[in-house]
Amino acid sequence: MFNFTFQLPTLAIFGQGQIKKISQHIPKNARILVTTGGGSVKKNGVFSQVEAALADFEWIEFSGIEPNPTYETLMNAVELVKKENIDFILAVGGGSVLDGSKFIASAALFNGAPWDILAKHAPITETIPVATVMTLPATGSEMNGYAVISRKETGDKLSFASELVRPVFAVLDPTTTYSLPERQTANGVVDAFVHTFEQYMTYPVNAKIQDRFAEGVFQTLIEEGPKALQNPADYDVRANIMWSATMALNNILSVGVPQDWASHAIGHELTALYGLDHAQTLAIVVPSLMMHQKIHKRAKIIQFAQRVWQFNGENADEAVDYAIQRTREFFEQMGVKTRFRDYSIDDSQFSVILDKLEQHQGYNLGEHKNLDRQAVKEILYAAL
Amino acid sequence: MFNFTFQLPTLAIFGQGQIKKISQHIPKNARILVTTGGGSVKKNGVFSQVEAALADFEWIEFSGIEPNPTYETLMNAVELVKKENIDFILAVGGGSVLDGSKFIASAALFNGAPWDILAKHAPITETIPVATVMTLPATGSEMNGYAVISRKETGDKLSFASELVRPVFAVLDPTTTYSLPERQTANGVVDAFVHTFEQYMTYPVNAKIQDRFAEGVFQTLIEEGPKALQNPADYDVRANIMWSATMALNNILSVGVPQDWASHAIGHELTALYGLDHAQTLAIVVPSLMMHQKIHKRAKIIQFAQRVWQFNGENADEAVDYAIQRTREFFEQMGVKTRFRDYSIDDSQFSVILDKLEQHQGYNLGEHKNLDRQAVKEILYAAL
Repeated sequence: MFNFTFQLPTLAIFGQGQIKKISQHIPKNARILVTTGGGSVKKNGVFSQVEAALADFEWIEFSGIEPNPTYETLMNAVELVKKENIDFILAVGGGSVLDGSKFIASAALFNGAPWDILAKHAPITETIPVATVMTLPATGSEMNGYAVISRKETGDKLSFASELVRPVFAVLDPTTTYSLPERQTANGVVDAFVHTFEQYMTYPVNAKIQDRFAEGVFQTLIEEGPKALQNPADYDVRANIMWSATMALNNILSVGVPQDWASHAIGHELTALYGLDHAQTLAIVVPSLMMHQKIHKRAKIIQFAQRVWQFNGENADEAVDYAIQRTREFFEQMGVKTRFRDYSIDDSQFSVILDKLEQHQGYNLGEHKNLDRQAVKEILYAAL
Repeated sequence: MFNFTFQLPTLAIFGQGQIKKISQHIPKNARILVTTGGGSVKKNGVFSQVEAALADFEWIEFSGIEPNPTYETLMNAVELVKKENIDFILAVGGGSVLDGSKFIASAALFNGAPWDILAKHAPITETIPVATVMTLPATGSEMNGYAVISRKETGDKLSFASELVRPVFAVLDPTTTYSLPERQTANGVVDAFVHTFEQYMTYPVNAKIQDRFAEGVFQTLIEEGPKALQNPADYDVRANIMWSATMALNNILSVGVPQDWASHAIGHELTALYGLDHAQTLAIVVPSLMMHQKIHKRAKIIQFAQRVWQFNGENADEAVDYAIQRTREFFEQMGVKTRFRDYSIDDSQFSVILDKLEQHQGYNLGEHKNLDRQAVKEILYAAL
């Protein structure tokens, strides 16, 4: 096990009817920016609960933060924040609204060109506090210090990280997810699954708690994901998925272990170029990457086969193939297709992907830093 | 799953060589009280690492906090804190030193009779910040807001809880546990196991992450506990046990689920009366309580048999008996005996135990509040 530090300062407020409690956790004289997305929170009653809870506060709304939130949109919010002397941001919606809000919170107080936060990982020293009413279990953004932002103009999709953007509190009410479109439910489950995968599917360092916890998240998502598609208003199913997604990316799985994240790096380029959903890109890349890296990841793939997919055979090669096959089948079962051809994408733009990846990440991706341009090219071709 | 809140503000600093980092996390002008126990940290090199790290700070030591720390000893420390204007407490040692320090931190600023914090659960509104270099994986006190304090004069052993006594930081260096006596290593593993048990072995509420995580802690302790007795200086074994003990009682297992804690309530009385180690009392009570409550806990005992003890049979009654038997055997394997007769204790003082328990807890113990005086009496007799 590697040395590590670990802390979860975000207050999770979990369960049905908890939105009203936000008033207890926002400073009395706060000037609040309430950020929202495309309007679903207006239709499903979440926004009116937030409005009721904020009755005694001063607040304004900034709506229209899109999926894969863009720098262009967010900079409009930054202007509003400055003009209105906003000192608290409440993100109401999914990971995109929250990630966008983390960027707004950072850019508004940033001394320099805000794009550098993403393009140059310029250090952030001060932010506006962010909190959230999170309505889409997927990104884990509600309890972590990460955000991913896109730029329309250049076709970039880049991430940044800071402890300062970890939300102050996160309300997680499973009933707010009953009305999610099937595609978003499915995407969220796949996203949380792959977050867990990025922190688990590397090489063993004898970190038993981290492995067991990751396996617990996998098993829960495998058991509950399909049920959410069948019975969208099953409270326990939604609650288990919601808590899984939070645990999948709040550092409890990543402490003391190697991490991969190559699938995410490649996937971000696929979203930027083809406009695929984030989870779709992961479902395409992960099985292909597992196959490509099956020698380097062998020990963990076998453990994954045995503990998560209940592989009982003796043959290790069969265990590896079984795990890859079952992973692909799980994504497909969730309705998220796993090959480029399913999205009518051919290899004609792969060189653009490879160039962009070089520009954004350099190469040497993955826990062994062994994924170079040729390796990523092979992974893309194997996913056709 | 029940509604809950969850937050882990304690900064865990985990791994070999981390003690030197404490200087980064203590306020520059702090006046520090360093609290210690019976002197083991002086012999194993931990204290000299702390001394080196505190070279630029003002600090004094209060030594001699005993196992099952006593009110009498701790009130001497409270006097010292007041006299020396202490504003930061660094507990160096095991759970007793840390629990004692939490009480010192609370009592020193308490407006009223400090004993009321324990006897009447008088609310705490202000405390001195507490941090720890934790050298004995067992109580989980390093990342939680609980403490247990004894009073020699009256034979009481009582607990209190406050978010204000959650440590600011906790250094967890597995190498500091290499020199632990076998008995303390074993006791710690049993203690962490039973903490997990108290939060898991109740009735199902379909909280899948909490169940899987608890099962992961059980499995890790079962795999690593015996190895620590065989190879006391195996880093990974010590690291896995250390992180297990922290996870076993930092609320990650307890959120959203019912809890029992009857074994602890009964066990505290056994320590107070007979002077048994805390873990010894738990090893005596748990198998007997499982047997007594096997109808009420049936579903979870079966799940425990299958997932933790790999019971593969079809017969549910056999699963229950198997789980109880394996639990008892695990405690015995760790060298912690599971019957009163192993400690030369007979039933002659049981009525005193039952009276004290009534005085301290009332009855209605356990997750169903169905353990009355008669039930506890039966549990005690079955453990003879």
